[in-house]
Amino acid sequence: MASKIHTGRFFEDFKLNEVIQHATPRTITAGDCAMYLAFTGTRNPLHCSTPFAQSLGYTQMPVDDLLAFHIAFGKTVPDISVNAVANLGYADVRFLQPVFVGDTLTTTSTVIGLKQNSSGKNGVVWVRSTSVNQDQQPVLSWVRWVMVHKKNLDVPAPETVIPELPAYVEAQQLRLPEPFTAHHEISVATGGRYFWEDYAVGERLRHPSGLTLNDSDHTMATHLYQNNARLHFDAHLMQSTPQGQRLIYGGVVISACRALSFEGLENALSIAAINGGTHANPSYAGDTIYCMTEVLEQWALPHPQLGALRLRMIGLKNIPPDHVENIKTSQGYHPNVVLDLDITVLIPRKGN
Amino acid sequence: MASKIHTGRFFEDFKLNEVIQHATPRTITAGDCAMYLAFTGTRNPLHCSTPFAQSLGYTQMPVDDLLAFHIAFGKTVPDISVNAVANLGYADVRFLQPVFVGDTLTTTSTVIGLKQNSSGKNGVVWVRSTSVNQDQQPVLSWVRWVMVHKKNLDVPAPETVIPELPAYVEAQQLRLPEPFTAHHEISVATGGRYFWEDYAVGERLRHPSGLTLNDSDHTMATHLYQNNARLHFDAHLMQSTPQGQRLIYGGVVISACRALSFEGLENALSIAAINGGTHANPSYAGDTIYCMTEVLEQWALPHPQLGALRLRMIGLKNIPPDHVENIKTSQGYHPNVVLDLDITVLIPRKGN
Amino acid sequence: MASKIHTGRFFEDFKLNEVIQHATPRTITAGDCAMYLAFTGTRNPLHCSTPFAQSLGYTQMPVDDLLAFHIAFGKTVPDISVNAVANLGYADVRFLQPVFVGDTLTTTSTVIGLKQNSSGKNGVVWVRSTSVNQDQQPVLSWVRWVMVHKKNLDVPAPETVIPELPAYVEAQQLRLPEPFTAHHEISVATGGRYFWEDYAVGERLRHPSGLTLNDSDHTMATHLYQNNARLHFDAHLMQSTPQGQRLIYGGVVISACRALSFEGLENALSIAAINGGTHANPSYAGDTIYCMTEVLEQWALPHPQLGALRLRMIGLKNIPPDHVENIKTSQGYHPNVVLDLDITVLIPRKGN
Repeated sequence: MASKIHTGRFFEDFKLNEVIQHATPRTITAGDCAMYLAFTGTRNPLHCSTPFAQSLGYTQMPVDDLLAFHIAFGKTVPDISVNAVANLGYADVRFLQPVFVGDTLTTTSTVIGLKQNSSGKNGVVWVRSTSVNQDQQPVLSWVRWVMVHKKNLDVPAPETVIPELPAYVEAQQLRLPEPFTAHHEISVATGGRYFWEDYAVGERLRHPSGLTLNDSDHTMATHLYQNNARLHFDAHLMQSTPQGQRLIYGGVVISACRALSFEGLENALSIAAINGGTHANPSYAGDTIYCMTEVLEQWALPHPQLGALRLRMIGLKNIPPDHVENIKTSQGYHPNVVLDLDITVLIPRKGN
Repeated sequence: MASKIHTGRFFEDFKLNEVIQHATPRTITAGDCAMYLAFTGTRNPLHCSTPFAQSLGYTQMPVDDLLAFHIAFGKTVPDISVNAVANLGYADVRFLQPVFVGDTLTTTSTVIGLKQNSSGKNGVVWVRSTSVNQDQQPVLSWVRWVMVHKKNLDVPAPETVIPELPAYVEAQQLRLPEPFTAHHEISVATGGRYFWEDYAVGERLRHPSGLTLNDSDHTMATHLYQNNARLHFDAHLMQSTPQGQRLIYGGVVISACRALSFEGLENALSIAAINGGTHANPSYAGDTIYCMTEVLEQWALPHPQLGALRLRMIGLKNIPPDHVENIKTSQGYHPNVVLDLDITVLIPRKGN
Repeated sequence: MASKIHTGRFFEDFKLNEVIQHATPRTITAGDCAMYLAFTGTRNPLHCSTPFAQSLGYTQMPVDDLLAFHIAFGKTVPDISVNAVANLGYADVRFLQPVFVGDTLTTTSTVIGLKQNSSGKNGVVWVRSTSVNQDQQPVLSWVRWVMVHKKNLDVPAPETVIPELPAYVEAQQLRLPEPFTAHHEISVATGGRYFWEDYAVGERLRHPSGLTLNDSDHTMATHLYQNNARLHFDAHLMQSTPQGQRLIYGGVVISACRALSFEGLENALSIAAINGGTHANPSYAGDTIYCMTEVLEQWALPHPQLGALRLRMIGLKNIPPDHVENIKTSQGYHPNVVLDLDITVLIPRKGN
């Protein structure tokens, strides 16, 4: 009798334009939100105060953007990346609708690119994934590409198709909450005094706080997202790998950086897009994550009260950001850089 | 003044047919369910998707069977097993009604067997425990037996009464959800392609994933269940024992195995019974749990859409299941076997 | 461009009578309550059983008193104690209204005392903090004082004002739940047989259970409370301090002691006041916390069914309470004492 264990797709199993419906529709609850708070310590009032959310025009608190992203993303892992050699990148990640407690997310992916590597042993797969809520409204859409092992080396290489991806999500494509009545009075709830006009392109924010990750917390977070990549959970397996231990899911590092960057970006209420990103080095239990932000662009928006900042969010391990000047040289990334994320946030204008 | 600290019952404190009403009625919340997800990574959509549960005829998501069991079970610990030398076994564990968020469980036990050991220093106590919801409907019923210390060795031995216990819960005694409209389309949500007819008696499923347990996660889980057995929580106490460290509550291992066995049993939506079980060896923080399943019996049921599989669920530590052939020999259990559980699951038929 | 990182107030930044509105209003959810259970293992049915709470006259389960306190308190940290050298004490902590799931707490502090130290390098700041719910009803009020660094040593010392603080909250100032229909039948749910009349001034309860804390659980708890004091989270920073590692937030120790003291105080349903308290020694991951309680006073109350006990709750690390006689000598605290808390609890009378 053939094995009933689904070991996940290998490179030769992906077909261009194939649509993959991922399992495990997921209803988000107040329990998820509380755990996300416990994992990150985030203090953004939009996700922890009903009256604050309502004062901005929301009917209830929206779920943290990254919690929704990690849950939606986790559903793709069993089909897309469980046999991945490497997660190579993200692009064009759009946050299309707020997600609320009680919403159920279902994720689908389409294969949009394929390129077998010259070794013939693996290849790169590009997928566009979309997560919809119970009303079939798209709430998240993103592209990622992974290098996946080939199992049967005799299968001929597919035609190479490399999708064109935008360098960033353009301002006119960003979701703009409507209604949204934010103004400088939100400072009382956020604790932040700086608004869209106050930031300058090229400015660096060296966020001082650090967050040390441990095995229980990173595995609990990754389990909550139902990401089943074995390298995060199986210490016995990892003992015989070069890493020697469980790797921390990159999404845990992204969330740590977003929470750490609250200090100095208190009014950056929502993430509108992740334009691209690289996990430059792995993180392990015991590592302390720090974050540095660089302002890349400052966009006016067709919205009376909001502007956008395109930010470079640099995650560091075991070195505070005031000790790092060069993120990347011709030699590659600084060895303590764990994340290089290009992200667009919405932030109220000062108003008048 | 006499101590007000209730140290729990000793062997001589149990009387045959005595009914013990356990403290701490417990309302189950969405927070419990999220934490259970974080502890186990379970991907069964019945417990994490409201629309999926509703598509099967449930009014809302039922709580994971084992979460309800651990919470109900935890209430018995202060009265039954806080002075236990050993938890010897379970039998006749029946899941009688689904449990929903908002339900409050109250547990009662009846002493159904007593046998003082020949040493005169301890004895075995059998109890049948029943947990009811706020409408007094029984939701769970189980028998377990524990070896308990005697405190006052002068108390004469009670009459020996050993209850007759069924080897397994018979098919006609299983709870069958009504209505329940599952069919092969559930594959979209579960990700599993195999149904009741696809399994064969004697078949073994070697589930590949492993789950490494750590101190924070196992103690948080056991706390959530309000199980107060000291050996799970008190590292200082355990330093002077042969184990030298905190033991992981057996229920944590059962839940890990249930979650790990999802791969290959994706459509085994519900547990209908635990027929028996043994914690063959202890587990400690740092151990990686694996699971292997053997199909023991395959029962048609008086239900148009469901069948039952009686499964032997073997929990292993620090050895993947494809490295283990003999679970038990005349010498006893393989030293890496931590759990030998006989369990009955409900699984939809393929239909037509 | 000036840094946008708010590094918190230094001693010279506090002005007498200044009112500080703290950021991050916080809606409490069922997820918070479940996590609190997982952190502490508390078995008080008032906070985990809706029917029990309703049988006492509550409309729903009130949130654990200390969970509400830690959340309210956490909001003050970024403004008051992020640059603290030491948290010197609490006084006059009053629990004024029950807090329910769905309530949103907002915290404000007033500077009520200032005293620059003779070194000129730091000073003591006293604040009274008040937390209100979404209906602007005060739910918690407390005084604490902290020693805070001076940044600019040239700023002249402020006038010394030391507030008069009560040694304890007097009986007539305690919140008394109304209606409240507790009586000896609550024993079924609490498991406790002792009521107000059964305790005697001077009596000591040596609670036997211990709770070992670990890095993931203490940091997750402190994150849940949105307390951002860096010394709890940043292991890299702490490596170069005398402690060498992350300190456990004192509130985590208070909650551990409250949960451990359930055994012997099962009917002490609510905390009405914290009269004062000291964190006598720090705690670190791996420490096992124990608790000993001494009955200080026994107060009749103007309530038909409730009495109050003023208790001294002693937290110990790595030594069970039956090995400790002298909490404090002229040399100071026993080195294993981590907490000396003066607390008033409400406990039903036996009735008749």
